[in-house]
Amino acid sequence: MDNFITLDYGSGGKKTSALISDMIVPLLKNDALSELGDGAVIDGAEKLVYSTDSFVVSPYFFPGGDIGKLSVCGTVNDISMAGGEPKYLSLAFIIEEGFPTADLQRIIDSIRLTADRAGVKVVTGDTKVVERGRGDGIYINTSGIGFLRTPSLSPRMIREGDAVIVSGTVGDHGTAVMLARNENLVQAELKSDCAPLHEMALKLGETLSGDLRVMRDPTRGGLATTLNEFIEDGRLGIEIHEKDIPVDPTVNMVSEILGLDPYYTACEGRLIAVTDPARAEEAVSVLRGFEDGKNAAVIGHITADHPGKLVIRTPMGGGRIAAKLAGAQLPRIC
Amino acid sequence: MDNFITLDYGSGGKKTSALISDMIVPLLKNDALSELGDGAVIDGAEKLVYSTDSFVVSPYFFPGGDIGKLSVCGTVNDISMAGGEPKYLSLAFIIEEGFPTADLQRIIDSIRLTADRAGVKVVTGDTKVVERGRGDGIYINTSGIGFLRTPSLSPRMIREGDAVIVSGTVGDHGTAVMLARNENLVQAELKSDCAPLHEMALKLGETLSGDLRVMRDPTRGGLATTLNEFIEDGRLGIEIHEKDIPVDPTVNMVSEILGLDPYYTACEGRLIAVTDPARAEEAVSVLRGFEDGKNAAVIGHITADHPGKLVIRTPMGGGRIAAKLAGAQLPRIC
Repeated sequence: MDNFITLDYGSGGKKTSALISDMIVPLLKNDALSELGDGAVIDGAEKLVYSTDSFVVSPYFFPGGDIGKLSVCGTVNDISMAGGEPKYLSLAFIIEEGFPTADLQRIIDSIRLTADRAGVKVVTGDTKVVERGRGDGIYINTSGIGFLRTPSLSPRMIREGDAVIVSGTVGDHGTAVMLARNENLVQAELKSDCAPLHEMALKLGETLSGDLRVMRDPTRGGLATTLNEFIEDGRLGIEIHEKDIPVDPTVNMVSEILGLDPYYTACEGRLIAVTDPARAEEAVSVLRGFEDGKNAAVIGHITADHPGKLVIRTPMGGGRIAAKLAGAQLPRIC
Repeated sequence: MDNFITLDYGSGGKKTSALISDMIVPLLKNDALSELGDGAVIDGAEKLVYSTDSFVVSPYFFPGGDIGKLSVCGTVNDISMAGGEPKYLSLAFIIEEGFPTADLQRIIDSIRLTADRAGVKVVTGDTKVVERGRGDGIYINTSGIGFLRTPSLSPRMIREGDAVIVSGTVGDHGTAVMLARNENLVQAELKSDCAPLHEMALKLGETLSGDLRVMRDPTRGGLATTLNEFIEDGRLGIEIHEKDIPVDPTVNMVSEILGLDPYYTACEGRLIAVTDPARAEEAVSVLRGFEDGKNAAVIGHITADHPGKLVIRTPMGGGRIAAKLAGAQLPRIC
């Protein structure tokens, strides 16, 4: 391997083979990958959960993670939120010419570690190289297949009075990435929450079954955008209480300096669940059984009072409507 | 929709919703997509074929196709070559800020048409927008799931004496893209061969069963690279005959002017098959039953004479070894 990735590594010839065989395959070793055909043959099941996501985060290394970890967690979490047990991943790189081989190695190591932790196998992949100035270091796409374990999760299952639960502090990921972009402007210690949610989600599904209405990981657009998605059909509204929403003090401080709203800032290792109110405390205690869920809390409820609207109650008793943002609070966050 | 894609369309907020709901969903309408969660739930089967590919072709419109058609065919063909019947696709865009909305619409139209033709449903997707100068208009990743129909296809199944078959003229796609890049330099009429190969491949598998050893679509690196991949384990070699390899006269002419070798130029709608020699004529006639297979031909055979080497025989009786290229003949071709 050369020290920098050149266009030749994307040619499909000897250098492409070297990149795949020397760097990618040894680190992602499993039976399905060993043949290196363009398609992997895997065992299926009756119902599958299937998802894809591209990752374009800038910078690609940030406190608490990197684009490799993110690209595994993002797809693992999307499958988990849809009620699936993640099993197989595809992995596709678009690398900019001149990318340091050592950085690629570090990203691949991170993919392997995270895939192991999430119990998924990378079974098929692709590598393209584009000219200098036609990318931004590295973009990664993953897709994933899971086996359906908790069926019928959907915003349509939400009922009046249901509890809204979050598994931990919100906005850590987006704020950590913004800190990495502005390290000369703000000095603070903060790690992304980036983590696989499969265990938490499976356990919640097993325990609550039909009393779990819907789960979602609040990535782009954060908590407020995800809650708005739950009520988009206009049947019901949501009310949440500022005092109950866990926010890390550093996230609050940095958000104030940078002019961000943590309720709209991406998480990459948090889940929001809507449950039957009678099961809410049980759900919170399931979540708190996991290190990443230790700050889980009920933050509000589903209401018929203001259909289609998310209202955030302040400690003083006032309320404000938090709509979807039109555009970008934070671009290139995942 | 605005006339140009801005960063706001990648924010996860209202503009992202508008882009997805107004442009992408109506054109790719199917039951699994209607809910727009991050994961789709689909029906599985015992054995699945799973593949992914990113598409970075420049220019993104070319004679005979565009990046949308290519991104469906590429994954459909990888699944088909692995013995699968393609069923479901994921679709992920990385769009550069400022991309014309009309071009995006045209690409999505093309995706829909090609997906219909290939009998696949787009069931999950993702859209990211990166800043101007951090991409090249549009990159697309697709992954796909198929049900395994022809098991045990593998280069390991190849035996001495087996026939090597190609389904049509080679190098049309790469040459057409090069023409589109150099339209002021060379004037010629040529279309990419870009097409879905699922029907041809399924029929070949059904007809020949175990007498079909392996199939592959010769994309990056073309015919010569793919044949080299078949013999990488060093057990056997391949001999092919120049006079039998179908090449379009325009491809020959343009290749001479641009200094390309059509045997190393990408196809996106051709397949190479290795079969039991006793079934070779039958295989050719199966392929000729399809419009895209009308120029199918036996072009050579598997030999024990020069293990690990591909030898191309000239009409004069001479021979040359055609190894994998080290680097790029044509970058950004798919």
